[in-house]
Amino acid sequence: MTRQKVIITCAVTGSVHTPTMSPYLPVTPDEIAAEAIAAAEAGASILHLHARDPENGRPSADPALFMQFLPRIKQATDAVINISTGGSSLMALDDRLAAALRAEPEMCSLNMGSMNFGLYPALDRYTEWKHEWEPQLLEATRSSIFRNTFADIESILAQLGQGCGTRFEFECYDVGHLYTLAHFRDRGLVSGPLFIQFVFGVLGGIGADPENLTHMKRIADKLFGDSYRFSVLAAGRQQMPMITMAAAMGGNVRVGLEDSLMLGRGELAKSNADQVKRIRAVLEALSLEVATPIEARAMLGLKGSDKVAF
Amino acid sequence: MTRQKVIITCAVTGSVHTPTMSPYLPVTPDEIAAEAIAAAEAGASILHLHARDPENGRPSADPALFMQFLPRIKQATDAVINISTGGSSLMALDDRLAAALRAEPEMCSLNMGSMNFGLYPALDRYTEWKHEWEPQLLEATRSSIFRNTFADIESILAQLGQGCGTRFEFECYDVGHLYTLAHFRDRGLVSGPLFIQFVFGVLGGIGADPENLTHMKRIADKLFGDSYRFSVLAAGRQQMPMITMAAAMGGNVRVGLEDSLMLGRGELAKSNADQVKRIRAVLEALSLEVATPIEARAMLGLKGSDKVAF
Amino acid sequence: MTRQKVIITCAVTGSVHTPTMSPYLPVTPDEIAAEAIAAAEAGASILHLHARDPENGRPSADPALFMQFLPRIKQATDAVINISTGGSSLMALDDRLAAALRAEPEMCSLNMGSMNFGLYPALDRYTEWKHEWEPQLLEATRSSIFRNTFADIESILAQLGQGCGTRFEFECYDVGHLYTLAHFRDRGLVSGPLFIQFVFGVLGGIGADPENLTHMKRIADKLFGDSYRFSVLAAGRQQMPMITMAAAMGGNVRVGLEDSLMLGRGELAKSNADQVKRIRAVLEALSLEVATPIEARAMLGLKGSDKVAF
Amino acid sequence: MTRQKVIITCAVTGSVHTPTMSPYLPVTPDEIAAEAIAAAEAGASILHLHARDPENGRPSADPALFMQFLPRIKQATDAVINISTGGSSLMALDDRLAAALRAEPEMCSLNMGSMNFGLYPALDRYTEWKHEWEPQLLEATRSSIFRNTFADIESILAQLGQGCGTRFEFECYDVGHLYTLAHFRDRGLVSGPLFIQFVFGVLGGIGADPENLTHMKRIADKLFGDSYRFSVLAAGRQQMPMITMAAAMGGNVRVGLEDSLMLGRGELAKSNADQVKRIRAVLEALSLEVATPIEARAMLGLKGSDKVAF
Ligand SMILES: [Zn+2]
Ligand SMILES: [Zn+2]
Ligand SMILES: [Zn+2]
Ligand SMILES: [Zn+2]
Repeated sequence: MTRQKVIITCAVTGSVHTPTMSPYLPVTPDEIAAEAIAAAEAGASILHLHARDPENGRPSADPALFMQFLPRIKQATDAVINISTGGSSLMALDDRLAAALRAEPEMCSLNMGSMNFGLYPALDRYTEWKHEWEPQLLEATRSSIFRNTFADIESILAQLGQGCGTRFEFECYDVGHLYTLAHFRDRGLVSGPLFIQFVFGVLGGIGADPENLTHMKRIADKLFGDSYRFSVLAAGRQQMPMITMAAAMGGNVRVGLEDSLMLGRGELAKSNADQVKRIRAVLEALSLEVATPIEARAMLGLKGSDKVAF
Repeated sequence: MTRQKVIITCAVTGSVHTPTMSPYLPVTPDEIAAEAIAAAEAGASILHLHARDPENGRPSADPALFMQFLPRIKQATDAVINISTGGSSLMALDDRLAAALRAEPEMCSLNMGSMNFGLYPALDRYTEWKHEWEPQLLEATRSSIFRNTFADIESILAQLGQGCGTRFEFECYDVGHLYTLAHFRDRGLVSGPLFIQFVFGVLGGIGADPENLTHMKRIADKLFGDSYRFSVLAAGRQQMPMITMAAAMGGNVRVGLEDSLMLGRGELAKSNADQVKRIRAVLEALSLEVATPIEARAMLGLKGSDKVAF
Repeated sequence: MTRQKVIITCAVTGSVHTPTMSPYLPVTPDEIAAEAIAAAEAGASILHLHARDPENGRPSADPALFMQFLPRIKQATDAVINISTGGSSLMALDDRLAAALRAEPEMCSLNMGSMNFGLYPALDRYTEWKHEWEPQLLEATRSSIFRNTFADIESILAQLGQGCGTRFEFECYDVGHLYTLAHFRDRGLVSGPLFIQFVFGVLGGIGADPENLTHMKRIADKLFGDSYRFSVLAAGRQQMPMITMAAAMGGNVRVGLEDSLMLGRGELAKSNADQVKRIRAVLEALSLEVATPIEARAMLGLKGSDKVAF
Repeated sequence: MTRQKVIITCAVTGSVHTPTMSPYLPVTPDEIAAEAIAAAEAGASILHLHARDPENGRPSADPALFMQFLPRIKQATDAVINISTGGSSLMALDDRLAAALRAEPEMCSLNMGSMNFGLYPALDRYTEWKHEWEPQLLEATRSSIFRNTFADIESILAQLGQGCGTRFEFECYDVGHLYTLAHFRDRGLVSGPLFIQFVFGVLGGIGADPENLTHMKRIADKLFGDSYRFSVLAAGRQQMPMITMAAAMGGNVRVGLEDSLMLGRGELAKSNADQVKRIRAVLEALSLEVATPIEARAMLGLKGSDKVAF
């Protein structure tokens, strides 16, 4: 059996972390573009992107902000651009979709269920905040729901999938999300090759334990057989151990400051690219090759960067 | 190691099934009381209860309806009364809590996270409905969310737990729910002996696969060690295989028409008590003893039936 | 997916237990025949058989002893006769094969590896023995090896499999035994439908833990896909819980005094048939049907009772 | 929880591979000493050693050969010296023990059960052999048994453990071996901190699958709690993926030409040290520190290099 090349996804900024937590978190379109391009040069073949308000770093769903960095990234790299439809658990669904519908990218993330998404424990780790919205946003996750109903998913599959030819990074935060994905597969609304992101360590989702990784793969194997590829991301300091396991188990990996602000133990990552390089060292030790954007497109059945709307 | 006695919980009517699906589903306070009492006589030491509108069988959160059967059940049996705080995914949280706050029972169910809860696939199985609300309710689950945010859980723990001395059947529909429960344990908001219900086979939650049962137990063992007892329920025809496995693995079991309308393959259960008797046959074959209500109270640290408000 | 009927194998006397341990252990050809026939009447469709010296109950490989009960069992029942090739870990391999080569049965057991097989801890449980050989045999297992080399297995497959048309109950005492069986499959020496007996709880083999059962099935699924059926036996008091789990998981079951002398907790089984009836109660509670001998033959591809040499 | 430092064991030459398979396999005492010393300098804190006939590379149990390299390694490094008691499956037990009894090292390997150990599939991979004994030895493993009975283990524990103060690398080739180790622990013959080597990928033992690694750890956790540390070795090309997983899961690692002749895919390792360096790159990417020999001694409760007999 030939071992597949490994797709490195880099999630450049996300909506989970806040400027107080790291000075290296990219915020402005310039920063996001520069970080994304450097990550691609370091070996990431997929760039998973969110936008932020350049004034204060607050997560934003504004398509105009996305359009300030998407074309520049496209011009400078061949990487696949993947736009979040998750946004943050505090955004309305229509807002969460606006940028993706505007840009019609090759890929979007798509979350396989509604869930709690608790960021509020981070409140205890900082005493001073750069911006007022930061503690407010964290606190708000105590009572908000990250909404992705069956009807929402149907709608996103129709609008972005059928409508724009976009394919998905199916984000599965728990075992039940795999069953939900299988439900849509059984209904004929999605088909392989499915790209499934196993997400570990979010409060509200499955924990970052090696047992959970083998279990997610076990159930995905049962449900999807050869018609899927898995990738792993883990929140916080479990990022590197969990994605290392994923690589050793035949999977793909996601890095990036959305998932963890650290490079190693007690050391802030100075850039997204540093995390890409870190996992590359592991891949090399395992004699694994990194997939190029072209190879990633072939593996995942993507429409190509000439068919996007930016 | 002495094997613990097995607690049989019976969930008498729930809010998932509808009158069209089975003529044996108890609907009126009379029926609910009769079914609950018979289940207790057959060996159930915990009765998990919902109410329904006696006119049309629609799930109801009305405390007045609960008060039509709670005292009668209490009078006729010694079983622990456990009132749902889940209600249905279509009820508002305050409504879901009203009956429990009125009755101050020994136990309540408490769901460890927000989630999708899809009943709509059942729409395809029936062509005629007894009541108009039935297909409407099923269809509504396509876009509703079963809401149990961190703040909601905190509030229920405070109001019912601290406020009324009620203890909980922690319903965990997925692995992440176990981590959420551990989060509340770490914050000192819940303490052992925890009674954890592993729930399998709901669309939106973890599937009914033996692998998922051993995995849930594995993670619960890691998180809770000796400070918890697990029980299992599974939706639909996986009910009996999954709870049989649970019994063989040292766990407790939940039966009842809330979880499955069937007794065996292709055979509607004519009563809740029939399901209780069915699992008792398995327990006897395994030389396992059924816990009495008194024993269940001791195992779970309950306040006693003299301290309820009905 | 239609659930298969369940094959009940009964291992009537074996070579592990000794007369001191239970007065109900069949020893003479008369007793073995009577117990086997009653087990078949109770629902066992496969009878796994060893012989014992009628004078003192010591395990014996003497074909003449087998021939005192095999024809009588064949005449009285339609059950599949399965002769051990394991004998005991203290017999030479040629001796272990003699009865099977003489009788050319439809099935034989075949152990998938050499291993330690420690019975000596039972020495502490009894102070007086009916026969001198009993403690000697138990003590001897401290330094003996249950021999089943690759060459031995090749030889048995050739002599009994190719030579006599016998098919096998592949006894797998650990995960590695599954890989060994896959090795022979890869070499074309065995083919499906494979009947794999997962054996739990022998000192030297894998323990009787539910985790081990799901794990054995998981690895067997990976290695053998749809080309195998599993059955479970567990030594001692884990017999009933482990085979109950097996039944709930879609597998087949083995009972019998070879595996456990008990019926329930602290209660000696008065007959093999009692254990058959006990697991039947579980199967009925699970709405599972018991396979008849004819059905078992079809499921396992057996040659038929008209093609044996007795 | 502080993450422990990682112990790298290097198994320098073993008795599994033969000179035809790699020109880099150390054979003479000079070569073994040089390879061991370089491995220690690269970061291995434990050196697991076998001897070979310097004339033809055939595995040898001759204590005189061991004494040609042991003192030199001791003089040149501080690493813990660990002498095999497994030898090869073709050596008699007394021979297998002779060198260890002569040298009284800080550690010895000790195999937790008798088993088949099939090297003969390698016969197909080579057409010409440097030495006549090579194909003969491989072929002989078809019918030999790697002997480690309960009595043998008792004897080794008494002679080397109690007699010499040697502690053990408990080699567990399958799940049952963990139960055997627990049996000796229950009898008070071994005590923590136990150093358990999980061995994957030997024909006759458990396969090299990530599921088997998490399962071995799961069962070891149940049986040994905090009183053990695990390390992983995997035969052949699964070496690097499996030990990478082990590192990511909190375990220790074993490399060396005994386990695999390769460095990466299709590339022979030119030295043992190269494999040490390769896994170090992974450890660094995971922010894991390598244990020094002093730290390894403290972690495993070793007697110290001043108490050996060479
Ligand atoms: Zn994102
Ligand atoms: Zn309920
Ligand atoms: Zn037998
Ligand atoms: Zn060795």
